[in-house]
Amino acid sequence: MTERVHDILSMYKSENPGVLTNLARMLNHGRLGGTGRMVILPVDQGWEHGPARSFAPNDAGYDPHYHFKLAIEAGLNAYAAPLGFLEAGAADFAGEIPLILKANNHDSLASEKDSWQALTASVDDALRLGCCAIGLTIYPGSALRQEMYENVRAYAEEAKAVGLPVVIWSYPRGSALSKAGETAIDVAGYAAQIACQLGANIVKVKLPSDHIEQDAARKVYEKEKIPIATLSERVRHVVQCAFNGRRIVIFSGGAKKDNDQEVFDEIKAIRQGGGFGSIIGRNTFQRKHNQALKFLDTILKIYGD
Amino acid sequence: MTERVHDILSMYKSENPGVLTNLARMLNHGRLGGTGRMVILPVDQGWEHGPARSFAPNDAGYDPHYHFKLAIEAGLNAYAAPLGFLEAGAADFAGEIPLILKANNHDSLASEKDSWQALTASVDDALRLGCCAIGLTIYPGSALRQEMYENVRAYAEEAKAVGLPVVIWSYPRGSALSKAGETAIDVAGYAAQIACQLGANIVKVKLPSDHIEQDAARKVYEKEKIPIATLSERVRHVVQCAFNGRRIVIFSGGAKKDNDQEVFDEIKAIRQGGGFGSIIGRNTFQRKHNQALKFLDTILKIYGD
Amino acid sequence: MTERVHDILSMYKSENPGVLTNLARMLNHGRLGGTGRMVILPVDQGWEHGPARSFAPNDAGYDPHYHFKLAIEAGLNAYAAPLGFLEAGAADFAGEIPLILKANNHDSLASEKDSWQALTASVDDALRLGCCAIGLTIYPGSALRQEMYENVRAYAEEAKAVGLPVVIWSYPRGSALSKAGETAIDVAGYAAQIACQLGANIVKVKLPSDHIEQDAARKVYEKEKIPIATLSERVRHVVQCAFNGRRIVIFSGGAKKDNDQEVFDEIKAIRQGGGFGSIIGRNTFQRKHNQALKFLDTILKIYGD
Amino acid sequence: MTERVHDILSMYKSENPGVLTNLARMLNHGRLGGTGRMVILPVDQGWEHGPARSFAPNDAGYDPHYHFKLAIEAGLNAYAAPLGFLEAGAADFAGEIPLILKANNHDSLASEKDSWQALTASVDDALRLGCCAIGLTIYPGSALRQEMYENVRAYAEEAKAVGLPVVIWSYPRGSALSKAGETAIDVAGYAAQIACQLGANIVKVKLPSDHIEQDAARKVYEKEKIPIATLSERVRHVVQCAFNGRRIVIFSGGAKKDNDQEVFDEIKAIRQGGGFGSIIGRNTFQRKHNQALKFLDTILKIYGD
Amino acid sequence: MTERVHDILSMYKSENPGVLTNLARMLNHGRLGGTGRMVILPVDQGWEHGPARSFAPNDAGYDPHYHFKLAIEAGLNAYAAPLGFLEAGAADFAGEIPLILKANNHDSLASEKDSWQALTASVDDALRLGCCAIGLTIYPGSALRQEMYENVRAYAEEAKAVGLPVVIWSYPRGSALSKAGETAIDVAGYAAQIACQLGANIVKVKLPSDHIEQDAARKVYEKEKIPIATLSERVRHVVQCAFNGRRIVIFSGGAKKDNDQEVFDEIKAIRQGGGFGSIIGRNTFQRKHNQALKFLDTILKIYGD
Repeated sequence: MTERVHDILSMYKSENPGVLTNLARMLNHGRLGGTGRMVILPVDQGWEHGPARSFAPNDAGYDPHYHFKLAIEAGLNAYAAPLGFLEAGAADFAGEIPLILKANNHDSLASEKDSWQALTASVDDALRLGCCAIGLTIYPGSALRQEMYENVRAYAEEAKAVGLPVVIWSYPRGSALSKAGETAIDVAGYAAQIACQLGANIVKVKLPSDHIEQDAARKVYEKEKIPIATLSERVRHVVQCAFNGRRIVIFSGGAKKDNDQEVFDEIKAIRQGGGFGSIIGRNTFQRKHNQALKFLDTILKIYGD
Repeated sequence: MTERVHDILSMYKSENPGVLTNLARMLNHGRLGGTGRMVILPVDQGWEHGPARSFAPNDAGYDPHYHFKLAIEAGLNAYAAPLGFLEAGAADFAGEIPLILKANNHDSLASEKDSWQALTASVDDALRLGCCAIGLTIYPGSALRQEMYENVRAYAEEAKAVGLPVVIWSYPRGSALSKAGETAIDVAGYAAQIACQLGANIVKVKLPSDHIEQDAARKVYEKEKIPIATLSERVRHVVQCAFNGRRIVIFSGGAKKDNDQEVFDEIKAIRQGGGFGSIIGRNTFQRKHNQALKFLDTILKIYGD
Repeated sequence: MTERVHDILSMYKSENPGVLTNLARMLNHGRLGGTGRMVILPVDQGWEHGPARSFAPNDAGYDPHYHFKLAIEAGLNAYAAPLGFLEAGAADFAGEIPLILKANNHDSLASEKDSWQALTASVDDALRLGCCAIGLTIYPGSALRQEMYENVRAYAEEAKAVGLPVVIWSYPRGSALSKAGETAIDVAGYAAQIACQLGANIVKVKLPSDHIEQDAARKVYEKEKIPIATLSERVRHVVQCAFNGRRIVIFSGGAKKDNDQEVFDEIKAIRQGGGFGSIIGRNTFQRKHNQALKFLDTILKIYGD
Repeated sequence: MTERVHDILSMYKSENPGVLTNLARMLNHGRLGGTGRMVILPVDQGWEHGPARSFAPNDAGYDPHYHFKLAIEAGLNAYAAPLGFLEAGAADFAGEIPLILKANNHDSLASEKDSWQALTASVDDALRLGCCAIGLTIYPGSALRQEMYENVRAYAEEAKAVGLPVVIWSYPRGSALSKAGETAIDVAGYAAQIACQLGANIVKVKLPSDHIEQDAARKVYEKEKIPIATLSERVRHVVQCAFNGRRIVIFSGGAKKDNDQEVFDEIKAIRQGGGFGSIIGRNTFQRKHNQALKFLDTILKIYGD
Repeated sequence: MTERVHDILSMYKSENPGVLTNLARMLNHGRLGGTGRMVILPVDQGWEHGPARSFAPNDAGYDPHYHFKLAIEAGLNAYAAPLGFLEAGAADFAGEIPLILKANNHDSLASEKDSWQALTASVDDALRLGCCAIGLTIYPGSALRQEMYENVRAYAEEAKAVGLPVVIWSYPRGSALSKAGETAIDVAGYAAQIACQLGANIVKVKLPSDHIEQDAARKVYEKEKIPIATLSERVRHVVQCAFNGRRIVIFSGGAKKDNDQEVFDEIKAIRQGGGFGSIIGRNTFQRKHNQALKFLDTILKIYGD
């Protein structure tokens, strides 16, 4: 056990040893094991965006086993997916990669202004499948966010009691926000804060832009001269908003990018800003297998340096 | 145990000894211990207003440990915060300061005319974290207030049965009220009364103005010549509305003020009007550490005289 | 919070913050507060031996309030008693002294060879009465010990989950043991070990004699030359058997002694041997009030030095 | 409300207002209302001894309504009976006399050396029938006493939570005791103590003899010169054993006596010794109606003086 | 994941992925990770034999942290202990070594002819503490074995449902067996079979002698010429009795031996006979630290070759 992992675990002293153990399992797994940094493969896009949009670019991805293998071969810290994808491979790959059960989900068959996610898997499912954590999404900014907070919190309490850490995908969205506002730096920091206050052990947010959405916030950012010009400054600010580094914050990669270097630069900015890692889906599983492995190899090298 | 604390506890004879014990713990802790007066540090603004607006003015406040330490060093009676902030320090500071779990919360990512607060922590959480009380907000004036009353009351019943006192933040707000009405003296008294009728052991209200919001009320205030000209008279009236002094009423400090003397004068008015104390967040944690300690020292001296 | 109390709490990292908080409350209360040592007043003899045998020597002790006051005035860490005695004063003395609910009890109306204790109070009672811990007795050596272990463990699990530390009175007794064996050093160490393995946060045992009860044990004590000649050596050995000092072990005073110096010498031996303190009933409440206070004052001075 | 009743209620501060209210109802009802003394009519002998043995001497007693009327006409504080007897009249006499549901019962169809009582009515029954309290028997001295303590305690916790005071019939009996021991003064005091420790609000014991059953107790009674020569001294001692007068202790009348004066002398001794009253069954309902009323009139006068 | 571990997991296809995952965690951990062989450190002797008999030979072992560290440093597959020992270190060593909660236990304070083990920890405890498995003992041969089978099976069912593998210590003992019969080859094979039939994922038995206890069995062993002359033949036979190698069987080391070579020869026999590994307690923790590490190094080399 490295000193860095010990330090990270020491930020979670109120949790039971089961939660600490599963956090350690994820932190110690894969090529980044022991560094305190994490790269996670999430594949919930089949549900979120539909299978063709998700898997046609690399049709090996229709097969749930493909993603288990990708995460294992690349040496990632964990693989996160909805119930069905995990059920399709949990026995086959038992013990080979820490699993995160993405327990609520949302499809894009309708485009509501204000949405929420359906709870589609139980804490018992996570135990039965040998998962190391459960993942839940909230939509700060949705008119339905309060119900989401209540549901997510009740679920999280149950999960932690049986030793499962809670990962919150905090994705600002809904009628209260402009499109730009969904990734605005003030909103991103706010979303990270809310996830932490709900008891998240790991927070997943999008990389923020330098847009400021709320007037009341803009005054403060300007008056206090909060540095948000560069991406690494913005990462640093989000980590600060997540209990000043006392909670693991990881950043999602967003849609597949054509320019790999753009992604690598983002990773460098995350690393430089004190982020704990990345959760990268489309940018990996929408590439051909070898390209994905090479792409991830570069990312892991950046984090592992 | 001082006579004053005994007198206060004797107002709560219908409560079980567990509730009395936890009330005593808060009343007996810190520099005001035994005086019957309380100063509490609340830090739920990260959730209510967002982290940057809350903590950028004194960025040490991004760190949840900072607030535990501030409350302990200043010698306050208790520290109140949402689940995440308490989880981040409850084990580290176990037994050093009475904790109040702020169990429902609301963010400002949307500006609803009529809002409510999500229940984001359970009574079991409060026990597991070693808290001395739970805190809940109601919005008298909101179109959703009835649901809030029901939820808050059900939660409070469960909390008291296991010995946890209930603190109600009674904050008039919503489409039924003008902006001035939110702090109108008639509304403030009304809000205090409702909190008490819901079974609150401690009521938190804002300092009222001399505005009168409701016509039906104005007639009575004028006819009965209820004295509300000075702040101390208004405090006295709110205390009267809170079961004539049989329930602990504390006053919130509101936004950070530039002029300290203004705050001190308010504290003197609270003391003179028979208020039981203050719950002061932004005016303390948004100052630099030493200034906050000095500021609180003055306040505790006023109350402790 | 002293460093010593921090060190003690750090031995209980698997417990939730509620358990840590209540341990801290007891460790920080009274004249020994902060020293890491504890003196507790237990008054369950009315049930164990009958009221006349217990209270006639100092008939003020028939009154349940007497014991609350004695523990408060003497500046002890906590007061332990069965349900009825606590119910008779928990509201009157709320917040003045940490309470331990002695939740199982046994009377001496029959003299069974193998006995057990009836569960006579619930975890909910402990919460309702504002207690800081629950206490339970086991009889290692009784033919019924296995059932006791199961009952005590189930109760303890429930108590810890709501933040209540568990004190186990580990009293060897029953058909498997000779009378001398009940306080034999090997049996005392074994009894302490079992209590710790059951999850006790605090273990209460009798002061051991240098008798060795079990042949299999005697061989080891002799071969390994375990030092047990003096009382302080035996205390040190029992503390060693209680997870090598990682669990709080306190020693009971036994029947009232005529010679005070004998008790004081025992206390010195406990202190010297690394014991955490004493739980002294009959030697205090069977004296007249002033004598009891003076007697306890001497004991607290020995421990507090 | 008299000062005396206020004083009595103040001994039960840990109880909820529902328990206090029902205690007050019984203390304030009937001719002794407000005096702090109680006379209760118990009719569980139909179950305990069989109907013919119980009711043939005055065959009006076969009719359950008879006992309601007797208690009402005599101006007693309460009427106690098993489920069936209460169901047979609770609607007819609703509101006319406080009812105590005798919730466990035992018949004499077999004569076990060690016995227990069956739980034959629920707390819900007591609420449904409008009862003011529930009554439960324990047999200290029985080899089955531990199970009885557990059952009675669990039932009592449930009853008090819904505002029903608990009356414990503490009747020493069983293989551990000689026949004389069942009413021995040491055993009677012990039985009263155990009932109080179990959380009884009212304790019912038999009038004790000057026999001392236990050797360990005799030494103390003799050494401490506990006065037990007269009945009033013994009553005083039992009241002392019942938390020094902080719990209501009432005495049963036993089998029907031929000599009324003997009963009256007992009542005077109870009064003189500080007992709170009597629970008199066979000595009243086994007399003809007018004689019973006259007999009770004398008793109430003794208590009411 | 090695082919061998895949093969082993493929024998457990009826189990849920959680059970497979935790089996894999143990099989993949430590220096034997991936070989399909296991060496586990069990430390329940403090409870089974008493602390002095267990830990005096190497008094570092009184400290629960010592055993965590020993298992970690030696590179073992798992550490098994009762609740208290795990609670004392589970947070400190979270994620460093797979833990097995030994959930039933028995002390040697009495020497019953027919005994059973008390359930002293729950499945929830195992989850809360982050364990990889639970361990339970049965005593085939005891008059109480049927109750043990029922209890163990019910517990195992609950454990597997939440993904925890079940390790059964199958220890023939009781009035039905001679002393020699406890390790007789026919009894050992029978004990392994029963454990497997109860649903054990891992079976722990003692190394068998060539004694045959049961006449009915002897006839068959002789008629069928079952080879049991050498230890490796007997190991092979026990593995055969454990579903012909379809269940993991590990062998316990028994009391500390003076001659190390004797142990190493046993290990070689286990390896040669197709046993899956060893569970070695006293032979390791009763040595000085460096000697234990060297001793285990030799054993791991034998298994790992």
